[in-house]
Amino acid sequence: MPVGTAATVKAMLPENVRATGADILLGNTYHLMLRPTAERIAKLGGLHKFMNWDRPILTDSGGFQVMSLAQLRKLTEEGVTFKSHIDGSRHMLSPERSMEIQKLLGSDIVMCFDECPALPADRKRIEQSMELSMRWAQRSRDAFGDRPGHALFGIQQGGLEEDMRARSADALRAIEFDGYAVGGLAVGEGQEAMFACLDYAPEQLPQDKPRYLMGVGKPDDIVGAVQRGIDMFDCVLPSRSGRTGQAQTRMGQVNLRNARHADDPRPLDPECTCPCCTQYSRAYLHHVHKAQEMIAGMLLTWHNLHYYQELMQGLRDAIAERALDEFVAVFHARREQGDLERL
Amino acid sequence: MPVGTAATVKAMLPENVRATGADILLGNTYHLMLRPTAERIAKLGGLHKFMNWDRPILTDSGGFQVMSLAQLRKLTEEGVTFKSHIDGSRHMLSPERSMEIQKLLGSDIVMCFDECPALPADRKRIEQSMELSMRWAQRSRDAFGDRPGHALFGIQQGGLEEDMRARSADALRAIEFDGYAVGGLAVGEGQEAMFACLDYAPEQLPQDKPRYLMGVGKPDDIVGAVQRGIDMFDCVLPSRSGRTGQAQTRMGQVNLRNARHADDPRPLDPECTCPCCTQYSRAYLHHVHKAQEMIAGMLLTWHNLHYYQELMQGLRDAIAERALDEFVAVFHARREQGDLERL
Repeated sequence: MPVGTAATVKAMLPENVRATGADILLGNTYHLMLRPTAERIAKLGGLHKFMNWDRPILTDSGGFQVMSLAQLRKLTEEGVTFKSHIDGSRHMLSPERSMEIQKLLGSDIVMCFDECPALPADRKRIEQSMELSMRWAQRSRDAFGDRPGHALFGIQQGGLEEDMRARSADALRAIEFDGYAVGGLAVGEGQEAMFACLDYAPEQLPQDKPRYLMGVGKPDDIVGAVQRGIDMFDCVLPSRSGRTGQAQTRMGQVNLRNARHADDPRPLDPECTCPCCTQYSRAYLHHVHKAQEMIAGMLLTWHNLHYYQELMQGLRDAIAERALDEFVAVFHARREQGDLERL
Repeated sequence: MPVGTAATVKAMLPENVRATGADILLGNTYHLMLRPTAERIAKLGGLHKFMNWDRPILTDSGGFQVMSLAQLRKLTEEGVTFKSHIDGSRHMLSPERSMEIQKLLGSDIVMCFDECPALPADRKRIEQSMELSMRWAQRSRDAFGDRPGHALFGIQQGGLEEDMRARSADALRAIEFDGYAVGGLAVGEGQEAMFACLDYAPEQLPQDKPRYLMGVGKPDDIVGAVQRGIDMFDCVLPSRSGRTGQAQTRMGQVNLRNARHADDPRPLDPECTCPCCTQYSRAYLHHVHKAQEMIAGMLLTWHNLHYYQELMQGLRDAIAERALDEFVAVFHARREQGDLERL
């Protein structure tokens, strides 16, 4: 899922996001509640109409951004009070308020309001946080109510502790959700630790419902997570890295800022069918990035989203053909080849 | 003509520029010679291929930007030496070098290298400058040579002095060009003085060749200039003002930064068929501009270019139907109505 934080996937028009193959967009409750506000979006007909996206929208609960972006946070059993990082205004988020905001936005896939401690944290802190999140998960479920056509996802917590992940999964199963996220990963623990957790965490969750890894990730993070049972991802990386001149390709990451591209007439990726690769040279992309022209971010974001969607489609096809291992082997071989060619 | 200074019309993909109805793009010799350099663009197949625009490109001569942007300029009979505003490197522009650069770029419509004094200037300075520009016009013509399929335009100078404009026009007619620009206007003299000059300047130039007013302008500048015989324009205004939240409409200029748009579900211009007006509300445009999202500049630039192209098409149609006066009357009446409604 491409991320459309403030009611736009940065540097893209929605029809072009759709052209990359994207089905679902992610919207950020925290950002939208502060500006332009959920009530304003509701009055204007909901987020789909507001941002011109008529396909599904998943919204996060706001919890993660409150902890990472807001000022003067205060956490209680009730929820979190905080000051806006935009204008310093005071706000409150709780399971009930998060459900209300996500309903006002018109979200199709609503996430439970949870709390996630930064890692590393000691077992006691992780346990308290997980238990609070499970109480909030029940309150989210109760507040969400019965809304046909709309889904509510639970979020597993428990840090890197297998037993606590299992307890969290059991608590969520007991409440029953339409899908389940593995939360609290990709917060600085590194790929090895994340994969170690994903060796057991997805299996603890229902196999017949979507399993979603929040905020992940680099292409090889995604491939490893799919091998471990994850179905859904969101990440700002394709759009954010595009705006800084970084492109994700079959051959690995390409830094268009590098002077070696200045005279290179070749496309970024000769096999890619996106407009950036079929219509422009690396020399052009290098030039417009150096000249700080908006088209640099526009083209590279388009390419990166296209690459990610194609990667996911390849993974889905490989799973359907029972050929995931072969797909993953080729994925890694081509990246290693790319590394060698750059030496 | 939309302006594509650094090999891109800012905030737009070329296919979308084309979708607004644009036929010709303007490229800036000064900017492109400094970065990525004309020689590099030539090696990469020319500006059309480099920036993915397969229709005509008009390039200016670089003279105007040297005088307005470069550092440590030194003007002689030979040409201008200057230091780049980007990296301080030393460069020279002369009629011969300007023709060479525009050829390297692959420009379809090449402009003579000229000199234009800032107004107000005394008659002596204007006369010296005009005479130098006419000697440079002959040198440009000689250096351009015979290039079938490519056009060379002369540039009339002479400030706001009718007799000097006439002498300049005679000098250009004697050399013979494929088109003629009225140069040295829109440099701070104001609309009234510009129109007073346009009451005679276009008539002094051949009636059977395109007459081009460089760097103009606001919609009412354009309409008044067309009434006075001008055929072609270029201006950064539609793209530049779009990036600052300003929209040009039938009802006049709309400032999307204004808080009164925050809850407004109406389109920017209900009669406009551009994607910005058919798919988004004023509330959305206000929100994304305030949030400094790139889509604000992308949508408003698209709208503004669409508006300008539609205005020019309307003027051409009105001329063909011998109904220019009626068209202009409606143009002004609707803008006055817009002013009243905003009160």
